[in-house]
Amino acid sequence: MLNLESVKKAQKNISNVVVKTPFAYAPVLSQMIGNEIYLKKENLQHTGSFKLRGAFNKIATLSEEEKSKGVIAASAGNHAQGVAYSASYFNIPSTIVMPEATPMTKVSGVKSHGGEVILAGNNYDEAYAHAVKLAEEKGLTFIHPFADYEVMAGQGVIALEMLEEQPDLEVIIVPIGGGGLISGVATAAKAINQNIKVIGVVSSGAPAMYNSYKSGIIQDSTSVKTIADGIAVRDTNPKTFEIIKNIVDDIVMVDDEEIANAILYLMEKQKIVVEGAGAVGVAALMHHKIKFNSPKKVGVVVSGGNIDVTMVNIIIEKGLIKSHRKMKLIVTLIDKPGSLMKLTEILKDTKANIVQIGYDRTDVNLSFGDANVSVALETRGEEHQEEIKKALYKNGFRFVVE
Amino acid sequence: MLNLESVKKAQKNISNVVVKTPFAYAPVLSQMIGNEIYLKKENLQHTGSFKLRGAFNKIATLSEEEKSKGVIAASAGNHAQGVAYSASYFNIPSTIVMPEATPMTKVSGVKSHGGEVILAGNNYDEAYAHAVKLAEEKGLTFIHPFADYEVMAGQGVIALEMLEEQPDLEVIIVPIGGGGLISGVATAAKAINQNIKVIGVVSSGAPAMYNSYKSGIIQDSTSVKTIADGIAVRDTNPKTFEIIKNIVDDIVMVDDEEIANAILYLMEKQKIVVEGAGAVGVAALMHHKIKFNSPKKVGVVVSGGNIDVTMVNIIIEKGLIKSHRKMKLIVTLIDKPGSLMKLTEILKDTKANIVQIGYDRTDVNLSFGDANVSVALETRGEEHQEEIKKALYKNGFRFVVE
Repeated sequence: MLNLESVKKAQKNISNVVVKTPFAYAPVLSQMIGNEIYLKKENLQHTGSFKLRGAFNKIATLSEEEKSKGVIAASAGNHAQGVAYSASYFNIPSTIVMPEATPMTKVSGVKSHGGEVILAGNNYDEAYAHAVKLAEEKGLTFIHPFADYEVMAGQGVIALEMLEEQPDLEVIIVPIGGGGLISGVATAAKAINQNIKVIGVVSSGAPAMYNSYKSGIIQDSTSVKTIADGIAVRDTNPKTFEIIKNIVDDIVMVDDEEIANAILYLMEKQKIVVEGAGAVGVAALMHHKIKFNSPKKVGVVVSGGNIDVTMVNIIIEKGLIKSHRKMKLIVTLIDKPGSLMKLTEILKDTKANIVQIGYDRTDVNLSFGDANVSVALETRGEEHQEEIKKALYKNGFRFVVE
Repeated sequence: MLNLESVKKAQKNISNVVVKTPFAYAPVLSQMIGNEIYLKKENLQHTGSFKLRGAFNKIATLSEEEKSKGVIAASAGNHAQGVAYSASYFNIPSTIVMPEATPMTKVSGVKSHGGEVILAGNNYDEAYAHAVKLAEEKGLTFIHPFADYEVMAGQGVIALEMLEEQPDLEVIIVPIGGGGLISGVATAAKAINQNIKVIGVVSSGAPAMYNSYKSGIIQDSTSVKTIADGIAVRDTNPKTFEIIKNIVDDIVMVDDEEIANAILYLMEKQKIVVEGAGAVGVAALMHHKIKFNSPKKVGVVVSGGNIDVTMVNIIIEKGLIKSHRKMKLIVTLIDKPGSLMKLTEILKDTKANIVQIGYDRTDVNLSFGDANVSVALETRGEEHQEEIKKALYKNGFRFVVE
């Protein structure tokens, strides 16, 4: 049973271990959107995500016998770390089944929290099936990532913390993957103040819960593809759907482009590292997916920060180009000596900083003697880029923007 | 005059505006270093740095007449934003003089906080001179970034907040640029508990205060060069040196490589974006620059988060290669059809993900018909890289690691 009482019990269970994360006013975002916006920074939670709360509460409520036998979970992500961290706290064994292709950093993350890792299966479903089988064979308790009332109650503690700090909150925005987080948060928040609106955000690359909510019947996806891997859940779970369809006020969708914008925004303006799943709430606000009749006091759950730095690199790179802070050009050199020097001279005069350069004489579209130079430039904005392009054109260079 | 009283007054002055930033336990770092480590996350401060505290306190203590005339500062960085933000709060005009080559993002950052920007001078010294001249001409109050007791008192509030949360703190580690932050923090902390050790950290690319402290006489640098631009101060200021030499317990140095490691660590494990200057304390701990006789309770001031994302990209890229999560190879193809296919097949079998590829037939060291392929691979660690190299060698490929 999930209700305010079970969430309050969960709060007691987890209070010694789980960080009461900051719930901080976001001045720049508030001004941009025209609402009073606060961010619940669960990326600053131990293990880098809210998942610790639910996993810890679940394990805390097991009997001594269940505890002594140990726990098992299937996850390549945040739930894995939450379970391993929590089991270590209770000094009980934990086994985490991860798909075979799981990146080494995620495996070592779980191991560093004391979990035993088993690599099995080509995808999450196969790892999940293996974990369920092992649980039965060895008498381990299987810790589901979301379809479990004790797990949901643990996640719901986030709502208690938000409302303790800002009791007059009017709207709470929550990412949706399996739906455990929003089930716990909405149940607690609505029990405290039934006027609070709770709005879920899914990634358009994993829309099962959106489609189910909007149609009223359970719909699964055939496949999922999104940079928000923490909420890349294929099927709609009946247990969380039952709660969500009854108490959540609306669900909106954001796409990968919008999520990437939000991740970069949170890095640059909030100085925090947020994973795709954690950024969907801010993405929904930034891209006006949620309509407000009047300015509201809004709390956004920024659910986690476990993003691969390789992905951060790609997001920054694309973001720099989109925001006109970087420009890639292919310039066809004029067929005479000193032509490359002339190019670099123009670039210097326009104060564009060259960060990469390539040279190709073999392109089939080139005349003999011509060469293409590809340059990547650091620029100071759209105007600056126009200025550079005009200077190249005026000096007789042909070029394309890549 | 700088003392506990003036810092306490500053605390009252700034409390309505400045964020009481989290002072959070860092479990992974604590375990790694063998001390109990807490991070004071001033990167989560409004404007992204502690500088707001000093600037705000200074402006708060101006007379009404001084306020009405307006303030001026010279800075391309955090102080600029702190002054502009604070002046806006008091609804008074602020002018920020920045060197001509200041990146657009920093200029627009100051403008977004309501400051007027004047671009003048080829470097900080010239901008500074221009600002001082304008202050005299127009009767504006010049807000010095550190050599001002009210500014130092504002920064010192950080120590009060740290000791309110963790009264039994034994060591405080503080970045040093001009020395205003450590002057304020050390003055307040030592007045509360004279047994607290306060240790400063400079970048080896800007060692003036280190050299002055270690020799006992003021030494300036001829030039500075460090990724920690927030503490890239060339000269030793007599006002802060007087305080530092008397009450700071030690000063240590870290280099750019060590700072970059700490920035990446803070992104990956702490999920926060920290600038070079803000990361020196963690860098000093990670690289054992500070010796402890026994485990201590340590507070580290993580002073700011205003780092250019282009620099973040470079740090990630280098960090991935250093930590064996990325490998760049130049492979000489065997001179026969299907050779490139063979190469990609081996890479697939070793589960190495290709993220970049280049092809060159024109290298003078190549035999006719041979070609060099440069590949960048995502790898799962040192062992994985060894495995890939062995597989290539066994299949007859010659290659070098770039």
